[in-house]
Amino acid sequence: MTALEHLLAHQHQTEALAQIAGRLGWDQETVMPRGAAAQRAEEIGALEQVLHARRTDPRLGDWLAAIDDGAQDHVTRAKLREIRRSYARAMRLPDSLSAELARVTSRAQGIWAEARADNDVAHFLPALEQVLALKRQEAAALSQGGEPYDALLDDYEPGATAASLAAMFDRMRPRLVNLRERIMGSGRAPAGITGHFAADHQLQLSRDVAERFGYDFRHGRIDKAVHPFSSGSGADVRITTRVVENDPFNCLYSTIHEVGHGCYEQAVDPAYGLTPLGQGASMGVHESQSRIYENQLGRSHAFTNWLFTHMQHLFGDAGAPNADAFYAAVNRVHSGFIRTEADEVHYNLHIMMRFDLERDLIAGRLHAADLEQAWNARFARDFGVQVDKPSNGVLQDVHWSVGLFGYFPTYTLGNVYAGCLMQALRAAVPDVDAGLAAGDPSGATAWLRGALQRHGRLNVPAQTIENACGFAPHEGPLLDYLDAKFGALYGL
Amino acid sequence: MTALEHLLAHQHQTEALAQIAGRLGWDQETVMPRGAAAQRAEEIGALEQVLHARRTDPRLGDWLAAIDDGAQDHVTRAKLREIRRSYARAMRLPDSLSAELARVTSRAQGIWAEARADNDVAHFLPALEQVLALKRQEAAALSQGGEPYDALLDDYEPGATAASLAAMFDRMRPRLVNLRERIMGSGRAPAGITGHFAADHQLQLSRDVAERFGYDFRHGRIDKAVHPFSSGSGADVRITTRVVENDPFNCLYSTIHEVGHGCYEQAVDPAYGLTPLGQGASMGVHESQSRIYENQLGRSHAFTNWLFTHMQHLFGDAGAPNADAFYAAVNRVHSGFIRTEADEVHYNLHIMMRFDLERDLIAGRLHAADLEQAWNARFARDFGVQVDKPSNGVLQDVHWSVGLFGYFPTYTLGNVYAGCLMQALRAAVPDVDAGLAAGDPSGATAWLRGALQRHGRLNVPAQTIENACGFAPHEGPLLDYLDAKFGALYGL
Repeated sequence: MTALEHLLAHQHQTEALAQIAGRLGWDQETVMPRGAAAQRAEEIGALEQVLHARRTDPRLGDWLAAIDDGAQDHVTRAKLREIRRSYARAMRLPDSLSAELARVTSRAQGIWAEARADNDVAHFLPALEQVLALKRQEAAALSQGGEPYDALLDDYEPGATAASLAAMFDRMRPRLVNLRERIMGSGRAPAGITGHFAADHQLQLSRDVAERFGYDFRHGRIDKAVHPFSSGSGADVRITTRVVENDPFNCLYSTIHEVGHGCYEQAVDPAYGLTPLGQGASMGVHESQSRIYENQLGRSHAFTNWLFTHMQHLFGDAGAPNADAFYAAVNRVHSGFIRTEADEVHYNLHIMMRFDLERDLIAGRLHAADLEQAWNARFARDFGVQVDKPSNGVLQDVHWSVGLFGYFPTYTLGNVYAGCLMQALRAAVPDVDAGLAAGDPSGATAWLRGALQRHGRLNVPAQTIENACGFAPHEGPLLDYLDAKFGALYGL
Repeated sequence: MTALEHLLAHQHQTEALAQIAGRLGWDQETVMPRGAAAQRAEEIGALEQVLHARRTDPRLGDWLAAIDDGAQDHVTRAKLREIRRSYARAMRLPDSLSAELARVTSRAQGIWAEARADNDVAHFLPALEQVLALKRQEAAALSQGGEPYDALLDDYEPGATAASLAAMFDRMRPRLVNLRERIMGSGRAPAGITGHFAADHQLQLSRDVAERFGYDFRHGRIDKAVHPFSSGSGADVRITTRVVENDPFNCLYSTIHEVGHGCYEQAVDPAYGLTPLGQGASMGVHESQSRIYENQLGRSHAFTNWLFTHMQHLFGDAGAPNADAFYAAVNRVHSGFIRTEADEVHYNLHIMMRFDLERDLIAGRLHAADLEQAWNARFARDFGVQVDKPSNGVLQDVHWSVGLFGYFPTYTLGNVYAGCLMQALRAAVPDVDAGLAAGDPSGATAWLRGALQRHGRLNVPAQTIENACGFAPHEGPLLDYLDAKFGALYGL
């Protein structure tokens, strides 16, 4: 066997084991008996140790040194790009730091949950300090120049930098704040949906809509979980949802969001299965799929028209007097503290403040002890509202407790990418609204599959978007879309 | 770290990974999307390769050589006994043979399924010949003297030999054949149960009965599967069942059977978790628990009295006119071709013929080409009935296609052990029937937990039974129990 063959065979087994780790995560959040948690931690720990040993196996270095990437076809070169990247990162991280991070974040997550329940920031601060110290060490170990935050960001969005994101976010913020203020001053306050929507009918609707958006149940399934997520690649891609009986949009739009993630994974070329290319290109590109399914398609006027009629049939009452009121309810803009409940206008403002704060935390410009004050001041400025309690403010997200620094901006990057893709999609599929109005998004999803999803991780994130859209991604299309949609809804 | 510490730490990780492999098996049979089978095979293959490498790691040999077992406490000695045994077996098997067996049996299972569906023995024979040739090689590689079959048997029931089993079976057969003939000649033919029993009520009943028998849902769950099984050890022990709407006993007694397996695993001392002792002592001892729960307890007159009333409440009609007719229906003895549907009288006759045939196949005294004829002749002799088609005869069981030679006898060994345990249980818990009649088997299951289950694999199988019973296991108690129970039922 050549070095390349050895390398790819080794990688194949590693990818297969990584799929198993993902499946255990799914199991834990959906079907695992409650009393199995401690044993499961041991099992996952053992598997992670195997994966770590494989990812830092010194033979990888020997094989990689013996391979001339330039002599390979473009698919193999892409595989090598990913393997080289992952190996370099793994080798720069001391084993002791990885182990310490796992230990500290596992503990910090529990403390965060207690602190949030008690609205007690001080209880969380020592744990946050510990996590931050380790993440700064990690950033220093991984950094290849540039600011340390970039090294963390690179784990979720290869090629992105804090400076370029900050510049883009600074261009977006004034328009978003302005749009928000005009909406709030419009005097219009559409009603939300009202009524009771039986759980089993909600799940039936979700399954139906998932199929309409192209989710393939031969290679997937939907279960309930406390926090909806998607999991797995290739032939086994599972999603979860949740049900709130007086709010059917919670279940439905959670499902459409996860269906976007799931369809992306299901659509990747099977030839890339169990290779480094057999998954979404990045967190940002992944989020572009979940967001375009959920928002640009799922919350469109055309699709909500169909949904209104369909829900009238299913539940007897869709919770709104007519299709226009229903559309307004689906897209209601309202002030709120919680990111995960935010509408399309507010959502990115949430992300931008988290990005600025976490970037300052990693750089050491902001200390954990000053975080709450910084959060509340910034929230008042961007949202025009005073935070009432830490669980509605700095303690609302799990991310920092588990060490996810550099992850937040990929949500807004996903929205920006979704804006670009929707512009390109409208050009390529002129009758997209006719399909949506008939409850049939297949024209849109077929285009996304062909233009983007099937390529998996063949190209780096920004290139993946540019190849699909025909132009380099930028924030313009998203902002124009939001102005147009909410301008019409609020008569601005 | 000492050699012992290294060894036990290595073993801990191996046991954790083995639990993961078991969980993947559960997933595959219960929740896995149908289209995921090929990818799952890759995933399991990767994990099995990791496990194989760990079980044949040459450091095991170094550590074991450096340890003085006699200087250790009795629990550590038991762990070392199991690790030495497993390592010695793993080292005697050439890697190429293991790989070839995995490949050939995977293929043979598919061919067997086709052959059974088509009643075409000839279609299966070449695959069976291949499996047999490899199993003979395996037996030769593993054999430590004695007949080769013993080396295969030892994988499922350490310490058992073909000669000792054959001697016991030869003592049992005349009494069983005689009992069968007297029942068939008794002129009594009790009616089966009749009616329709809604699937969700059957599952509700099964969950209720599972809890009554001590199954702990904090550390387990029940799902549906085509072939019921139990899976996992320690804190995560899952069972499955199936539902046939006109035969509630199928679901109920499958469940109680698997509950016996599951309770055994759940009861093992948590201190043995993720060690070689943290599981049942052998297949035979495991089967003793599933059988005593299912038969000696679950099909007892006392418990069926409670069950009759309980099912009347749940279904409106228990399918029999009174409790005695219900008891007779539960324990109806009837001729039949299929092992898995056999009653307590016929079941062991099925096993004994399989044991004799597979022992001859491995020894080369019987050729695959002559197997069907040998099966049919033997069936006519022991059961008094001519086999009508191969799917009711030699093609009915999956075992041989997947290489499970030496497994069948552990079913009857389990019944023999269950007979011994029931005799000891009656002496230790005199009011066992009063509990069962109230739908409360906890007196019986508490005794089994304390006398046997909690010890896991601390002792070898026969010693495990002897410690619980106070006498060395033998076939007498089972045969006496069957004579008494069915003598009374059939007025013999």
